[in-house]
Amino acid sequence: MKDQIAVIELTGTALRFLDQTRLPGEALMIETTDHRVVLDAIRRLQVRGAPLIGITASYGVTLAAREWLSSNPAATIPLTESAKFHQDMLAVCDDFAATRPTAVNLFWALAQKKKKNTRPITPALLTAALETEARAIHTDDALRCSAIGRHGAEIVPHEAGVITHCNSGALATGGEGTAFAVLLESFRQGKEIHVYADETRPLLQGSRLTMWELQQRGIPSTLITDGTAAMLMRQRHVQLAITGADRIAANGDAANKIGTYGLAVAARHHGIPFYIAAPFSTVDLSLASGESIPIEERSGDEITRIGERVVAPAGVATYTPAFDVTPAELITGIITERGIITPPFVETLAALHP
Amino acid sequence: MKDQIAVIELTGTALRFLDQTRLPGEALMIETTDHRVVLDAIRRLQVRGAPLIGITASYGVTLAAREWLSSNPAATIPLTESAKFHQDMLAVCDDFAATRPTAVNLFWALAQKKKKNTRPITPALLTAALETEARAIHTDDALRCSAIGRHGAEIVPHEAGVITHCNSGALATGGEGTAFAVLLESFRQGKEIHVYADETRPLLQGSRLTMWELQQRGIPSTLITDGTAAMLMRQRHVQLAITGADRIAANGDAANKIGTYGLAVAARHHGIPFYIAAPFSTVDLSLASGESIPIEERSGDEITRIGERVVAPAGVATYTPAFDVTPAELITGIITERGIITPPFVETLAALHP
Repeated sequence: MKDQIAVIELTGTALRFLDQTRLPGEALMIETTDHRVVLDAIRRLQVRGAPLIGITASYGVTLAAREWLSSNPAATIPLTESAKFHQDMLAVCDDFAATRPTAVNLFWALAQKKKKNTRPITPALLTAALETEARAIHTDDALRCSAIGRHGAEIVPHEAGVITHCNSGALATGGEGTAFAVLLESFRQGKEIHVYADETRPLLQGSRLTMWELQQRGIPSTLITDGTAAMLMRQRHVQLAITGADRIAANGDAANKIGTYGLAVAARHHGIPFYIAAPFSTVDLSLASGESIPIEERSGDEITRIGERVVAPAGVATYTPAFDVTPAELITGIITERGIITPPFVETLAALHP
Repeated sequence: MKDQIAVIELTGTALRFLDQTRLPGEALMIETTDHRVVLDAIRRLQVRGAPLIGITASYGVTLAAREWLSSNPAATIPLTESAKFHQDMLAVCDDFAATRPTAVNLFWALAQKKKKNTRPITPALLTAALETEARAIHTDDALRCSAIGRHGAEIVPHEAGVITHCNSGALATGGEGTAFAVLLESFRQGKEIHVYADETRPLLQGSRLTMWELQQRGIPSTLITDGTAAMLMRQRHVQLAITGADRIAANGDAANKIGTYGLAVAARHHGIPFYIAAPFSTVDLSLASGESIPIEERSGDEITRIGERVVAPAGVATYTPAFDVTPAELITGIITERGIITPPFVETLAALHP
């Protein structure tokens, strides 16, 4: 069993990150000093998962600041140049904010950066501050993952089939994950769990990423198609369902990868508890309910093609939301870094919100 | 709109059938005089759908008889040779029966052939009889499809979103299909339907085949991933769910393509009627409930690879049932060639069974 999985690292000169689109065939690290490569990586899903996108964007802004500095040596900069630096960095923040609409952690991380960005200090100092903060965001997320894992393990039975959807592990966060951290911590505690991973169409994060992480960690697991989940539940192979979330509204409605809602409906039908595991950075109290959560629609190519292979007739209409919203009434509890929250979420989420 | 789709045809010299694994890119007809090519086509899903498998197997046995005749000219055959013919044809029937375990229509068609096969007539006469019967099975199925379409159209609203799973059209039957025939007949009657087709993992019969048929027929339609169905229902885009079935037990439990059960669960959760459309050849009164229906398990490759592309880590465990069973209590009605059957199915199925 691997104790650590290398996913992202800012060195003194560059950002190194794992190209997740090449998994599971190849664990290739991309190394770049160009923030535009990072922007593109987020757009192309080489890096994904709401918390990891936030961390990557923070490092990306740091790279942009370094680029700016190296083309404008600090010693020669008058005050007007410093104002230009601020303006340019804010534009970079906007570029990152525009990459993926549903990932609230990104906005949260960038909002923190924007605040810092308004102080009139020199570009060199600000660049150092941006780097420090990016590293802090990363470390904080890793700690949050550990806390989520610890809290969540409490609700995992000593022997259980656990189903999950999409990827919510080290490949989605700055630490060991959210829902995945719960599985990993339960496994470390010696619980006899068997994980069933939905392949998660269309982009197959379940087969490509979650199965890879499960294998790296040595956790007993089985891959299924999304449409097999309900049958497994009926056969009593599953005692618990747990997924991450990309965004949670004030009432507990949770947006997560498309297919999560159907899984929650099936869990309810079979009397199986359904948990969301997510940090508070995912919770947006300004949204009254899931109806206000914007849903990114992806390109139809994601379902009409697989790799180079065309699997649907040319010209067909498609509907390809990236996320769906699971209403609070189907959620047994939300596992956060501050503990497990149970209904009524509108009260319990507000009470524990930092 | 195309009125006819060429799928299978027995000529005087050969069997021509559409290679469905090449759709939607190419509508290639395979022409063969070798029954082993037909066996292989069923195994490799070049031909699929319970009724169409039955028809294809019947034609395949006819080819085998023709092959036997051409290597044993009828004029020279003594009685012992005729017994050999019977024996060989029964072995061919067994070969076809062994191709796909869940397809009851195949056994049904072959059982009819086996009966015919016991009479002591000459191989030449028997070959002609086999051919006549194979053609009759084909024609009967086409008529059954039309009747299913007519009966089923009665329950389709004048304006409705209708969701379906897998393929149940001309590519699965000897006529216009089962669930698909209901959609087609409703469309011909001028009903304003919009069809949502689940892509149907792992083999994508929905995107490859159903979307192709919908496009050929000019029916307004949208392709979704299987995991999007529940969200569409929650958004009230769907007023009716309808699928085919591979096998129906005496109590109305219905086996159909994996993912059907999850769709039925989602339909129930949203108060949406869920219908099965299938001919009586699919109904097996000897099975008390769905628990007795054998479920074929397919190769794990079907979910760990897509075409040449490996999408899961090497060595992962998979669970890949080809079918699931939707219990009768989730089924609003069963649309048959003899009318629409409603609960309690154990009585209504027996009453209408031919």
